[in-house]
Amino acid sequence: MSILTLLTDFGTQDTYIGVMKGVIFGICSTVTIVDLTHDVAPQDVVAGRFHLESAYRYFPSNTVHLVVIDPGVGSDRRSIAFETAQGIFIGPDNGVMTGIHDSPIIVAVELDRPQYWRTSSPSSTFHGRDIFASVAGHLSAGVAIQALGSTIEVSSLVCFPELFTVNSEGKQQGIVQSVDRFGNLITNLRLDLNLLECWNIHLPDHILPIQKNYSESGVGQLVAIVGSHGFVEIAVNCGNAQERLGIRVGDRIAIDIKGNR
Amino acid sequence: MSILTLLTDFGTQDTYIGVMKGVIFGICSTVTIVDLTHDVAPQDVVAGRFHLESAYRYFPSNTVHLVVIDPGVGSDRRSIAFETAQGIFIGPDNGVMTGIHDSPIIVAVELDRPQYWRTSSPSSTFHGRDIFASVAGHLSAGVAIQALGSTIEVSSLVCFPELFTVNSEGKQQGIVQSVDRFGNLITNLRLDLNLLECWNIHLPDHILPIQKNYSESGVGQLVAIVGSHGFVEIAVNCGNAQERLGIRVGDRIAIDIKGNR
Amino acid sequence: MSILTLLTDFGTQDTYIGVMKGVIFGICSTVTIVDLTHDVAPQDVVAGRFHLESAYRYFPSNTVHLVVIDPGVGSDRRSIAFETAQGIFIGPDNGVMTGIHDSPIIVAVELDRPQYWRTSSPSSTFHGRDIFASVAGHLSAGVAIQALGSTIEVSSLVCFPELFTVNSEGKQQGIVQSVDRFGNLITNLRLDLNLLECWNIHLPDHILPIQKNYSESGVGQLVAIVGSHGFVEIAVNCGNAQERLGIRVGDRIAIDIKGNR
Repeated sequence: MSILTLLTDFGTQDTYIGVMKGVIFGICSTVTIVDLTHDVAPQDVVAGRFHLESAYRYFPSNTVHLVVIDPGVGSDRRSIAFETAQGIFIGPDNGVMTGIHDSPIIVAVELDRPQYWRTSSPSSTFHGRDIFASVAGHLSAGVAIQALGSTIEVSSLVCFPELFTVNSEGKQQGIVQSVDRFGNLITNLRLDLNLLECWNIHLPDHILPIQKNYSESGVGQLVAIVGSHGFVEIAVNCGNAQERLGIRVGDRIAIDIKGNR
Repeated sequence: MSILTLLTDFGTQDTYIGVMKGVIFGICSTVTIVDLTHDVAPQDVVAGRFHLESAYRYFPSNTVHLVVIDPGVGSDRRSIAFETAQGIFIGPDNGVMTGIHDSPIIVAVELDRPQYWRTSSPSSTFHGRDIFASVAGHLSAGVAIQALGSTIEVSSLVCFPELFTVNSEGKQQGIVQSVDRFGNLITNLRLDLNLLECWNIHLPDHILPIQKNYSESGVGQLVAIVGSHGFVEIAVNCGNAQERLGIRVGDRIAIDIKGNR
Repeated sequence: MSILTLLTDFGTQDTYIGVMKGVIFGICSTVTIVDLTHDVAPQDVVAGRFHLESAYRYFPSNTVHLVVIDPGVGSDRRSIAFETAQGIFIGPDNGVMTGIHDSPIIVAVELDRPQYWRTSSPSSTFHGRDIFASVAGHLSAGVAIQALGSTIEVSSLVCFPELFTVNSEGKQQGIVQSVDRFGNLITNLRLDLNLLECWNIHLPDHILPIQKNYSESGVGQLVAIVGSHGFVEIAVNCGNAQERLGIRVGDRIAIDIKGNR
């Protein structure tokens, strides 16, 4: 049994996702499909990268991850697939799948072989159906990644700059990269769990120490912890930090060592 | 492995869909269930028909499609199933499944045999669980459609009039039949792809030529194309046409041959 | 083929559910996972209990039901699993799974054996991934419930009081425990279906008889029926009772025998 995950910005109010599954099951009837989420904001490649990064490592290492957040569909952006020790990734070459991997890319291909597409005249607006779903189905059915297209240089892939930064004063500057359903503000700051007690989070009106877990604070209190994604996040115990603080995705967050300056 | 699709207006905030799947898997544990969408507006049979029409042709031809958009549940409207070369369709006889098929109906039955229901005293409000899910499970498990009920005349099925019209001036009048998550306005107008350049879309304040794809226009520009559903749709490149134009489902759209009148 | 249901308050806009499925399939690749709903209001244990109660009885009796509505995650509340003749239930010991079963609990355990967790150092905020999904995967793969932890007394489980009440005047007092997508107000009042015609619902400005089905009333009319969940619910035929009446979850509803007082 092989697993195929889907991550898109298509929402669930239309049949786009259902149609992609129809194409996949028509090629490989035994694959198990898992929806990561389809509620990424339309065309938000940065949020898509965060969601993929949050999820892929919890799947078996032979999983195929299909990502369709594709503002450039129909343009000359490449369609690609690449393989690491942690899975195979398929999607547009726009940065949504790059810079997130603990292990190096073994092989990358451009999906330029129409015999693996649903049709040699794909819709200009729905490569998710006509190219990506079809190719993902063939991969799940056992076709080798090298068969799906021409090998391309790993260094040629579109890659976002790393957002996590350390500035000259010993502080670290990050941003809020996602807000989850509970209003938790998830930064792009990673910290060594053994050194948590050394750091403070600087908010406009607060300085928060980083705690080990929620239960060190009372109900309704602001708390900074290293969340389940491995990033520093700002939460309100049994409450909503976004509503409390008015902080949004993209806002900058600083942390520094306690007592520094 | 057989596939069963679900299309309803039940939403996903309640357990109605989960319950239907419990009934289905209790009868046929090996079927693969695919959600088309459950976010059809409550009781909107026209939108349901659009979504079914958009999706069914991308599934294997032995797929069972279960549609439960059923404002008449508990009344004397019939519960039906019918078979075409492109699949088996189950749902209420209210037009939601009719008039959309490229191939003719081979056989139609009324679901009047309680031995295939979950209970001979079905809930008056949830035939989706007590009749349709159960019958769909038996179909998926290999029961022949003819066993599920009395054969009925295909001509007796409730059928919507075709919405696409050609008027006396050589124009074609259609409506916006759906707005997707991206704000694209999907009409019910189909056009020959080889004659695209001959047609204009008439909006209240715009005349738009029909283009081959988005990339012929700049970011933020209005564009009319034949979308992935095969219908003319009005979009804004990387934007939201519904917000731009204020056009809603049901609004009329006219197209005509360039230079006409 | 075994079935595993998921019921959470995680929503579907993040990858939390996808991640849990990754963990489960990594342990048991052949299980069939069914989403009940993930749109329970954050931390709403009462609504979660209603949804579980509405759904579990429609699944095969060997189904595993995993419930993660867990405001106390990271505190000292217990993680538990228990078995009845109608399935195995896994989740936090906070009342979300108790008091709803037609058949008694056969065995209950505390999930205190880290060898069945994803990691012996679980995230303090995401036991759904690190403990519950992993244990559910092992259960689905055939591990006996007794192996997963120390046996605990059934009487020690956190249990909500029964909300349904009969007052001294022969009336019954209940509450609206859920509002579904259609605006139907679902109470926690159960009635003998053979005695429906004896009862009236008392609303602030209305007295409604309880009817057998919608079709006894006209479109747009208020109606009280015993809904598909088995509870008395208040609906508007082809309309929205919540919008009409302004009644919310938690509001009290009284019924009495016709002619009483």
